[in-house]
Amino acid sequence: MNDVKVLDCTVRDGGLMNRWQFDDGFVRDLVMASRHAGSDYVEIGYKASTAFFDPREYGKWRFCREEVLREFWTPGQDTTLTVMLDIGRFDPADMIPAADSVVGAVRVACYVNQIDEALTATQTLDSLGYETFLNIMAVTEAEPQALGAALALVGRHSPVKAVSVVDSYGNLTPVQTRALVVRYLEALQGKEVGFHGHNNLQLALANSLVAVEAGATFLDASLAGMGRGAGNTPLELLLPQLGVPLGRLSPLLSMLETTIPALQSQLRWGYQVPYIVSGLANQHPREAMDLMDRGVGAVESGYLERMAGLAVG
Amino acid sequence: MNDVKVLDCTVRDGGLMNRWQFDDGFVRDLVMASRHAGSDYVEIGYKASTAFFDPREYGKWRFCREEVLREFWTPGQDTTLTVMLDIGRFDPADMIPAADSVVGAVRVACYVNQIDEALTATQTLDSLGYETFLNIMAVTEAEPQALGAALALVGRHSPVKAVSVVDSYGNLTPVQTRALVVRYLEALQGKEVGFHGHNNLQLALANSLVAVEAGATFLDASLAGMGRGAGNTPLELLLPQLGVPLGRLSPLLSMLETTIPALQSQLRWGYQVPYIVSGLANQHPREAMDLMDRGVGAVESGYLERMAGLAVG
Repeated sequence: MNDVKVLDCTVRDGGLMNRWQFDDGFVRDLVMASRHAGSDYVEIGYKASTAFFDPREYGKWRFCREEVLREFWTPGQDTTLTVMLDIGRFDPADMIPAADSVVGAVRVACYVNQIDEALTATQTLDSLGYETFLNIMAVTEAEPQALGAALALVGRHSPVKAVSVVDSYGNLTPVQTRALVVRYLEALQGKEVGFHGHNNLQLALANSLVAVEAGATFLDASLAGMGRGAGNTPLELLLPQLGVPLGRLSPLLSMLETTIPALQSQLRWGYQVPYIVSGLANQHPREAMDLMDRGVGAVESGYLERMAGLAVG
Repeated sequence: MNDVKVLDCTVRDGGLMNRWQFDDGFVRDLVMASRHAGSDYVEIGYKASTAFFDPREYGKWRFCREEVLREFWTPGQDTTLTVMLDIGRFDPADMIPAADSVVGAVRVACYVNQIDEALTATQTLDSLGYETFLNIMAVTEAEPQALGAALALVGRHSPVKAVSVVDSYGNLTPVQTRALVVRYLEALQGKEVGFHGHNNLQLALANSLVAVEAGATFLDASLAGMGRGAGNTPLELLLPQLGVPLGRLSPLLSMLETTIPALQSQLRWGYQVPYIVSGLANQHPREAMDLMDRGVGAVESGYLERMAGLAVG
């Protein structure tokens, strides 16, 4: 599995829960631990404009200004610093050339119906010298035909290195994941395929491994699975399955024992009944997150019963 | 997957953590919720003799006396009440005939080197009218030849319905699980194969599903994965993957939201760094459990470093 690349999205995805208000020390420790453990890419935040987000409310990883990144990142051959770009919230033409930046790769996230803007964005970023990637979100509810057409378009016209299958609602089984990866590989004609799992049903890691068996070569993961709702594939579990020796995980597992428990008590991502229910019902986790915020149970509130009507038995 | 049977081992396996000192209300709720959700077998405890365990220290589910079982179990066609029997701690000849008991099935747990006693036990239990099962423990450290010989013996001479692959140390990957199930099926010549997973690496559910793909037809699981160390396959996740509609999980998920959190804070099974380490190193979790009891980290204590020397990269 040496050709499989791992992207650590802890800060970028975890920041969705706390508006990227992380302690600087946490981010420095994470970057060091993640590089030590062999992450190939560290995605440290979103590139966004202050026209859309108030810097008094949002932490620095919502904006990823070049001078901030330089304080936290020592360039090296081992790992590529990565940022994500939201279509419509930042003009890719405002990026400085890659030769002048510590950022080496940019990921564009879009829904199927935004594929044209995403294509243009990846072309602009490519011409600036960045390695580019594409995440097409919420594929489990996308129309198969529209998704197929979008992938064919990307295969022909985009410079992206890989397109990731994104299990936004944490609904995929290993069998379904395998089929999607095969389909992406066929539709993309020569581009690589990645996988971004969510852990609602404790299948994110297994789905990632099955994705690799099916030919995927680019996997997202985060420390302790940190991320909205049920969270992502746990980085500390993925790396050893790809061959990283236990000893190299020491700094990551140390964070898991020291800094993560307080963060998890506060932000409450992970294995929770509302997310099991939203995953089984293939629904966006927003209602489930709202229940968690209000401290109301998924059963007592009637959420489960309502979702049971939507779920495929 | 209609031919796959699920055994709920919550009380039997969970009791290893609290000497089976469960509230009666918890056990009653669990039995009802588990039957409602479609568990085919409910394994409610161990059959053991008070000569080996002091009833002032151990709860009723360590002994499973017939008159106690009758207070908690209404016989029905839907679900088979099951007890487990430890070789050497109870004489199977002391069981009453199945016709006079609410117990319908008995599982015998043994290590590879106890296979002869286990065979005799299953024969005695079979002649008393019980359905019998066998769990051979710690297979990831068993000699392949000794294991093969044991399985062949069981295939020829034991009345058991199924033998379970037991991933005692939570070390198996889906690929390894598949191979073991295939091997068991071949060696057992016509008997069914089961799977008992541990969740150290968040693969217990995925391994269970792969086991079914490979031909296994008998799966262990427990509510919230309750069980020693990292715990077992979560029952609430397994059942829907086998086709149980979300709505039927309501009582189980309600327990997960109401009674389980306090139990889990107290007993602390589940996703913890020491268990990740013991799983990756394919070691018995006893040292990891000791670290948890003492509140000492796996990294700071040097446990990780020591285990890294044993782990297969």
